[in-house]
Amino acid sequence: MSSSPDIEESLAFTPKFDAGGLITAVVTDAASGDLLMVAHMNAQALAKTIETGEAWYYSRSRKALWRKGETSGHVQRVIELRTDCDQDALWLKVEQAGPGACHTGRRSCFYRAVPLGQKGAARLEFREAGKTFDPDKVYK
Amino acid sequence: MSSSPDIEESLAFTPKFDAGGLITAVVTDAASGDLLMVAHMNAQALAKTIETGEAWYYSRSRKALWRKGETSGHVQRVIELRTDCDQDALWLKVEQAGPGACHTGRRSCFYRAVPLGQKGAARLEFREAGKTFDPDKVYK
Repeated sequence: MSSSPDIEESLAFTPKFDAGGLITAVVTDAASGDLLMVAHMNAQALAKTIETGEAWYYSRSRKALWRKGETSGHVQRVIELRTDCDQDALWLKVEQAGPGACHTGRRSCFYRAVPLGQKGAARLEFREAGKTFDPDKVYK
Repeated sequence: MSSSPDIEESLAFTPKFDAGGLITAVVTDAASGDLLMVAHMNAQALAKTIETGEAWYYSRSRKALWRKGETSGHVQRVIELRTDCDQDALWLKVEQAGPGACHTGRRSCFYRAVPLGQKGAARLEFREAGKTFDPDKVYK
């Protein structure tokens, strides 16, 4: 087990970005505790999140800084931001504005389960997969 | 906003591994809902997790398949496994055996908060940072 007390027990915030300059951000609903989404931040998105208290990410598909909710209005107010032992992941507890966090029109991005106990190719099963908004209307 | 209905609405499980062959796994406590850790899986770790219902990861530091709890006994029984819209992240709700998930001796890896509303270098603040076990005794 690797251990780096300098990073793990320190109060210096030294986020570890990957080779692409990104760090993983896990986003949960501050009220319900449910996992809403997993996104990525570059240094600029992280700085803006800390400064403004609103969630900013880096969109890998659009290769651009991304203020969550800039199009949909479904912004995220950050109630608490945490980092993990080796400072290569972030946890945002947020107050999610609007009906959902997922661009597919759902509250959470995690609306499918992988059944356990099988070998080989798995079939997913929907869980809480009802749409809470119409993405075609929200993202014009 | 990018959208791929083939992946997002499909019941075919087609996990998207990154260039290094890994996928991000977010691990929460099935009872409390708290975020315990963020880890990574390769295809083999994912297959073993699905097959056995116990959490297997890939240790990037040790470059090896890693059965969670193999040294400490702090194994994780997977209550539910989910994937997200674009199938590049996994969510494990687990029953955590023993006093904690973090190799630093804590229940969760996320025991430090980043204060919001500031510019420039941030100082972390401990949150629920008490050790629940002695890592020197558990990892010999």
